[in-house]
Amino acid sequence: MTPSADAAKPRIEKTYVERDGLQIPVRRVSLSNGDSPVDLYDTSGPQGVDVRQGLPELRRPWIEARGGVERVAPKHTPKPELMPEGLRRPKVLRGTETVTQMRYAREGVVTEEMRFIAEREKTDPEFVRSEVARGRAIIPCNINHPELEPMIIGTNFLVKINANIGNSAVTSSIDEEVSKMQWAAQWGADTIMDLSTGANIHETREWIIRNSPVPVGAVPIYQALEKVGGVPEELTFDLFMDTLVEQAEQGVDYFTIHAGVLLRYIPMTANRVTGIVSRGGSIMAKWCLAHHQENFLYTRFREICELMSRYDISFSLGDGLRPGSVADANDEAQFAELETQGELTKIAWEYDVQVMNEGPGHIPMHMIKENVDKQMDLCDEAPFYTLGPLTTDVAPGYDHITSAIGAAMIGWYGTAMLCYVTPKEHLGLPNREDVKEGVIAYKIAAHAADLAKGHPGARDWDDALSKARFEFRWEDQFNLALDPDTARAYHDETLPSDAAKVAHFCSMCGPKFCSMRITQDIRDYAAEKGVEAQEAIQLGMEEKSREFRQKTEQPA
Amino acid sequence: MTPSADAAKPRIEKTYVERDGLQIPVRRVSLSNGDSPVDLYDTSGPQGVDVRQGLPELRRPWIEARGGVERVAPKHTPKPELMPEGLRRPKVLRGTETVTQMRYAREGVVTEEMRFIAEREKTDPEFVRSEVARGRAIIPCNINHPELEPMIIGTNFLVKINANIGNSAVTSSIDEEVSKMQWAAQWGADTIMDLSTGANIHETREWIIRNSPVPVGAVPIYQALEKVGGVPEELTFDLFMDTLVEQAEQGVDYFTIHAGVLLRYIPMTANRVTGIVSRGGSIMAKWCLAHHQENFLYTRFREICELMSRYDISFSLGDGLRPGSVADANDEAQFAELETQGELTKIAWEYDVQVMNEGPGHIPMHMIKENVDKQMDLCDEAPFYTLGPLTTDVAPGYDHITSAIGAAMIGWYGTAMLCYVTPKEHLGLPNREDVKEGVIAYKIAAHAADLAKGHPGARDWDDALSKARFEFRWEDQFNLALDPDTARAYHDETLPSDAAKVAHFCSMCGPKFCSMRITQDIRDYAAEKGVEAQEAIQLGMEEKSREFRQKTEQPA
Repeated sequence: MTPSADAAKPRIEKTYVERDGLQIPVRRVSLSNGDSPVDLYDTSGPQGVDVRQGLPELRRPWIEARGGVERVAPKHTPKPELMPEGLRRPKVLRGTETVTQMRYAREGVVTEEMRFIAEREKTDPEFVRSEVARGRAIIPCNINHPELEPMIIGTNFLVKINANIGNSAVTSSIDEEVSKMQWAAQWGADTIMDLSTGANIHETREWIIRNSPVPVGAVPIYQALEKVGGVPEELTFDLFMDTLVEQAEQGVDYFTIHAGVLLRYIPMTANRVTGIVSRGGSIMAKWCLAHHQENFLYTRFREICELMSRYDISFSLGDGLRPGSVADANDEAQFAELETQGELTKIAWEYDVQVMNEGPGHIPMHMIKENVDKQMDLCDEAPFYTLGPLTTDVAPGYDHITSAIGAAMIGWYGTAMLCYVTPKEHLGLPNREDVKEGVIAYKIAAHAADLAKGHPGARDWDDALSKARFEFRWEDQFNLALDPDTARAYHDETLPSDAAKVAHFCSMCGPKFCSMRITQDIRDYAAEKGVEAQEAIQLGMEEKSREFRQKTEQPA
Repeated sequence: MTPSADAAKPRIEKTYVERDGLQIPVRRVSLSNGDSPVDLYDTSGPQGVDVRQGLPELRRPWIEARGGVERVAPKHTPKPELMPEGLRRPKVLRGTETVTQMRYAREGVVTEEMRFIAEREKTDPEFVRSEVARGRAIIPCNINHPELEPMIIGTNFLVKINANIGNSAVTSSIDEEVSKMQWAAQWGADTIMDLSTGANIHETREWIIRNSPVPVGAVPIYQALEKVGGVPEELTFDLFMDTLVEQAEQGVDYFTIHAGVLLRYIPMTANRVTGIVSRGGSIMAKWCLAHHQENFLYTRFREICELMSRYDISFSLGDGLRPGSVADANDEAQFAELETQGELTKIAWEYDVQVMNEGPGHIPMHMIKENVDKQMDLCDEAPFYTLGPLTTDVAPGYDHITSAIGAAMIGWYGTAMLCYVTPKEHLGLPNREDVKEGVIAYKIAAHAADLAKGHPGARDWDDALSKARFEFRWEDQFNLALDPDTARAYHDETLPSDAAKVAHFCSMCGPKFCSMRITQDIRDYAAEKGVEAQEAIQLGMEEKSREFRQKTEQPA
């Protein structure tokens, strides 16, 4: 039996499902065998929008209806020659009071963001609210980023992944970075971080945020450092706060802030194999040592909380002393900072500011779980957000793999978001292809973790694909794949004809003998006889055995 | 300070170290900073040998000195037109008694193979002997494969990896397969399996074995099936035994034999999502059902043991009922067969035949450990040899990654050898590039497992590389990498000049600011002051702080 030509066509579509009055984005895969379509979680955002206009402002009415905000002229504006008309914003929002999802959650309010997320995650809005109120999950959603489709980061939700992009002093342009962001979101990045350090930082970020359907994170100290000509000692708290306002007005959804790098922890790194490898961590270390003063991000942390509460920006408390090699894993410096991250988490919660905690880094497998256990304990179950971890240092060029191993494991143990690593890690800046490789490796890690955690419904995707594979529905297998293009291309390298895509065999065994076909014979036999094969065999039905032999002697 | 041009040159060399009177192969990486060279475990074999002559017969004198063998004309000979003069063998060896490493080990004899392995693994020959005697490790080394460099597979040794090659009915040639074997060994495959199913199986295998420095495994039932025109029902025990002799005389080092697929287990697969996916398993299932008889590999297992003892071929007891999807993981059929594998392991040991056990397959992370625990228990700690496992089914095209995650974990839990999976798994036959991708992913998994097991000396490699990275010895970092070519190429994409390779910065942060440089400043400062930085800070030395500030204001 040959499926119709129509059934063999690719059938993947980005669409929206109306639920609870909301339009929930999905990647819908229609199947050729008449089974219900499979709807997959989708991060790609509205398609076909002109990047010079930016995405529609999905959340604006929700934010305005909640109130507590004023419209003000931004303190910093982009260079007009780099900003098209459609992306200019003469006014931005600022909270006249705390406008965070955590505040609403604690007051018992279920926001539209929470309802949207509940539908995406196939759970209950009230559960979303309670997890945010508890601090066990965050919804990064600056009131100045109304374009984003709300998502949640927490141990009791689907494991998320982040993709880093950003230009540097050495390479890249605005166009390239916007296109990388879209590319990352298309392949499944749940958030992106703009780590730009080069020219036109402000404008690059503005273009990215106006076009990003996913939350955007940033590390404000990078831009602050640019403002003082790259000399860490020149940094001041006022300059830093001014940078926070700049980024807050643009709509950055979460800030990495290295407030846990304390003066007394710095010497703990002196005998490490790889010292301090976090950029933010080393900037603050240099500042502390030069001034012989405590980190201003720590001493004036409450002022930062106050500011962030007015825009609903989430903390991503940086791990500036994370290990840069397996030799330095789980050491005194790392865990000292984690303890301070815990202290700061609870302070932020006093201000109803949402918090997640960044984690390592480079950790051999047997030392991974301790990281999650300690973070859960010290940070009272605030979401953990880790970089990898890389499980060995010996494979530069393949650190998306060394780290996908650690990422899958740490996700299983309870980490809420995994920061991707690309093949270029330690070697250079990721290009478009590297971004895709990193995202795919991390989608694999995140989904493997969802399976291992027994996340409700996670296995449906695997089962649909495996069923398609077993039934030789090749096109369904490709379309259900995390990366349909690559799956199809690899198949076509060996057997390019269209006929091969409906063939009941594959290139591994060839047409004459195929293990999956034989299994199908076994199953058909059991079904046809109307008895359990088990029973048939136990009864010792020699005759049936003969029949079966005759029946299957002629290859189909 | 700029390193000399000489120091910046690539310095990797395949060499031999004389130890205990043996020539031990190593990949030697010389370093530019004067540190001792790093010697890495090497599987690439003698270089520059004409494939029409085959490798030197390292083990022949050892085998002959031990005796117990006779020289006989082979029962099967290759087609002369496909076999050059230099590869022809008018006589082959056959044991007149049991000639297995297990027998020698049990008799207290430390063979040359064991001494060679002890040097490679940096352990004691007596320990090697005791592990082989105990059945906890195997040395696959057919007396007709004198070309191989001895290696060991066991939970208390370095984790090994296998690469599958082999032509099929659809594609491939002899040349291509020999070249894939060499390529796989060059990148680090510890054994290879020849899974050919197409034309010229015998000749392809002969070429491969004569040129393989690593043990070669095979699945004899594939060739037996070819002999009966691809119709499983036509298989007979005599035909199978004849095929075993054919492959034994060629020098196959281990046989995958699906003797654990029992008639009563087959119906347990009827309700699976993906039934039986092992080729060998489904061949035997079809035979059993058609004849309504018990698997002849099981009923006549002792005869097989007897044969294998005469060539020192190791069993790789197949897992014909392994799960083909996460839905089918750890089910009744899988574990029923494992129990029989345990029974057969002990029977083989009665004949002093070495045994390892094959394992899954597709297993979500949280169900992996149970596989190792059960295998260790049921098979009395015989080495476990697993395919992956794949931790999710949703990423065809990337199954080297989905499975490297599971492979690293199962290796950590005690699995002795990991069978690689290439990006083409489920989609097509691996080409040269796929073989490399698969081998690299699995070397990563195996080394990550060695680190997690705390294998003595495993971390030295990571530490050497991390130290080079931290000290901006770029060439040393590339040369120490698992894949130096790719590491260098990725770096050069962003910063191609030679100057960049001695630069004290990288493309991620640019020349002006670099976190690793700052850390170095911190360390230099602590060292120069002759005090612990900790102490300096606690004493509150304002003056020193000022000095430091002045000192580091001028970028180097």
